Amino acid sequence: MPGVEDGIPYKAEDLERFAYELFIRCGVTENDAKLTANSLIVANLRGVDTHGVTRVLVPYVRRLQAGVTSPHTNIRTVRETMSTALIDGGNSIGQVVAAQAMKIAIEKARQTGCAWVGAQHSNHFGTAAYYAMMALEHDYIGVVMTNGIASVAPSGGLAPMLSTNPLAFAVPAGNQPPVVVDMATTVVARGRIMLYAKQGLPIPEGWALDERGRPTTDAHAALRGTLLPMGGYKGYGLSLIVDILAGVMTGSLFGTHFHGPLAEDFTNPMDVGHVFAVLNPGCFVPLDEFKRRMDQALRELRDCPPAEGSHGVLIPGDIERTETERRARAGIPLPAPLIQEFEDLAVELGVPFPEPLSH
Amino acid sequence: MPGVEDGIPYKAEDLERFAYELFIRCGVTENDAKLTANSLIVANLRGVDTHGVTRVLVPYVRRLQAGVTSPHTNIRTVRETMSTALIDGGNSIGQVVAAQAMKIAIEKARQTGCAWVGAQHSNHFGTAAYYAMMALEHDYIGVVMTNGIASVAPSGGLAPMLSTNPLAFAVPAGNQPPVVVDMATTVVARGRIMLYAKQGLPIPEGWALDERGRPTTDAHAALRGTLLPMGGYKGYGLSLIVDILAGVMTGSLFGTHFHGPLAEDFTNPMDVGHVFAVLNPGCFVPLDEFKRRMDQALRELRDCPPAEGSHGVLIPGDIERTETERRARAGIPLPAPLIQEFEDLAVELGVPFPEPLSH
Repeated sequence: MPGVEDGIPYKAEDLERFAYELFIRCGVTENDAKLTANSLIVANLRGVDTHGVTRVLVPYVRRLQAGVTSPHTNIRTVRETMSTALIDGGNSIGQVVAAQAMKIAIEKARQTGCAWVGAQHSNHFGTAAYYAMMALEHDYIGVVMTNGIASVAPSGGLAPMLSTNPLAFAVPAGNQPPVVVDMATTVVARGRIMLYAKQGLPIPEGWALDERGRPTTDAHAALRGTLLPMGGYKGYGLSLIVDILAGVMTGSLFGTHFHGPLAEDFTNPMDVGHVFAVLNPGCFVPLDEFKRRMDQALRELRDCPPAEGSHGVLIPGDIERTETERRARAGIPLPAPLIQEFEDLAVELGVPFPEPLSH
Repeated sequence: MPGVEDGIPYKAEDLERFAYELFIRCGVTENDAKLTANSLIVANLRGVDTHGVTRVLVPYVRRLQAGVTSPHTNIRTVRETMSTALIDGGNSIGQVVAAQAMKIAIEKARQTGCAWVGAQHSNHFGTAAYYAMMALEHDYIGVVMTNGIASVAPSGGLAPMLSTNPLAFAVPAGNQPPVVVDMATTVVARGRIMLYAKQGLPIPEGWALDERGRPTTDAHAALRGTLLPMGGYKGYGLSLIVDILAGVMTGSLFGTHFHGPLAEDFTNPMDVGHVFAVLNPGCFVPLDEFKRRMDQALRELRDCPPAEGSHGVLIPGDIERTETERRARAGIPLPAPLIQEFEDLAVELGVPFPEPLSH
């Protein structure tokens, strides 16, 4: 990713503490501040800077300050069956809503084998993988989807009608590390293009269309235009399913009805919807057998002969796990302009900003 | 699709009756023969000739004759919780196993709000959409996945390790027709390339690699090589999730462990796995509200201004529904070599083969 890799490294714990302190200053409770800061730092550690402190910490703080995200947790259960629930996030922090929804889904799956929990009136929740991975501690499979502000045109259309609508899966294994798939249903996430735009770099062809629906490599033109769904009409289909399950079904906003982007609109609640599914694989084959079978499947994939010019086959989640180990030692790199922004925010809110790792 | 569109049209009911009679001659019970024939004809009506009588009827009959697919239904429940079940298909016809699994999932979703049902020791089941759409009659959402013989290399790998691993979703609406997404997690289905190979036509670039991992437009080389997953590593991730849920989790074969292809191997059971999820959207928002919201979301998508050179936005399922109406009138086109094959089979099994529609 351009720019960010060349930044000055900070210790993950220091940045997590910094984010935590900022949230506390915004009136967020200790537990919620801890969770939210952790979700952002886990994203940065995994190399997903689009969903880490690198891109969303400042807008999160500004929205809390402006009162358009509630610092207090106002979650209530709207409707409930043995294996489903709908919770109203009450405009609480997205991370807090999502974690609570996932906990409910895990508890219900423990009772009945599986569960779906929807969340309405929520906010940006960081990476979907964070919540899908909560299922792993229980040896369950987690599935997470969220909608958001439209940036993708449906196949054949000119206007943005759908969000990047990501979906994530986490599946436990035995000796092998878990499988963690977390993907926008676009070729790339919008935040990725923002990072290119910030650096004035061109984007690869095939990522986006300009506002007249023409292919473009201009990151700014792409941000004014539409993102391309992955795999053409198939990605459009998947994206629509995510918007239906996370938005239409949960009573949240959907389609074109969202207000301004996270980092630009400080007057309207986001009102995004999420949906969380949990499945206990031990209900199908005994858990130890499932884990043995997972290990075998993953080992066999790793043993696949590499294609010409490739270093071999990776399992989804490998890159992020390797990067987590690397960044836990080498630090999370922050670009200079962001450090300045953080230092200003630190002064404004009376919070100490840490020294970089290399000092 | 090459060739098939230029065939001689037959009345859907006539071909359905023909398939039914063939199955009866193979010792299949009336109900199961009816279901299986119907699933193939519905595929043809929807324009999905890769999963209709056009490609799979002859292999189905040959496998039943060879005794590698059981004409008798031997389904038993292996394990069950309130919201999950695993059934053993006992090598029964895939359609019969899948329909039974979906019925169980629908019944469990009625009790608890949602359900996942896995099936092991099953066979080729036709189109995934057929079972997902079973949920629509109950105003439920249906999700279906299946695995099968490996034809796709994982990203970075040379050898086929994953099937086209399709997944399907069906979502009810109010006045708008339902959303039906049914997609292989490859750029195209293997059966599509087979139809090109049969006609000696080249395939478009980007569909497949040859056996040395190089891009190819030769349909025969593609069939010896590997299919490309949709959207690169994202499609690989999705495909792996399908193989895990449908295969690893259900105790079925997975990855590279399948025997020969449907139309070539008449000595081994297929032993494929499927998984079926059903979700009652009325557990989240009241059903009439869900339908109103679906109608609004779909209407808004249809009203999206068309991109340059496009006729506008379609909803997943539109093309297949229009084609169903057209083919119900105009008939299902069969290519001449297939008619000959059907006529030979008709003589062999003492079943009348219908006259074409145009006579």
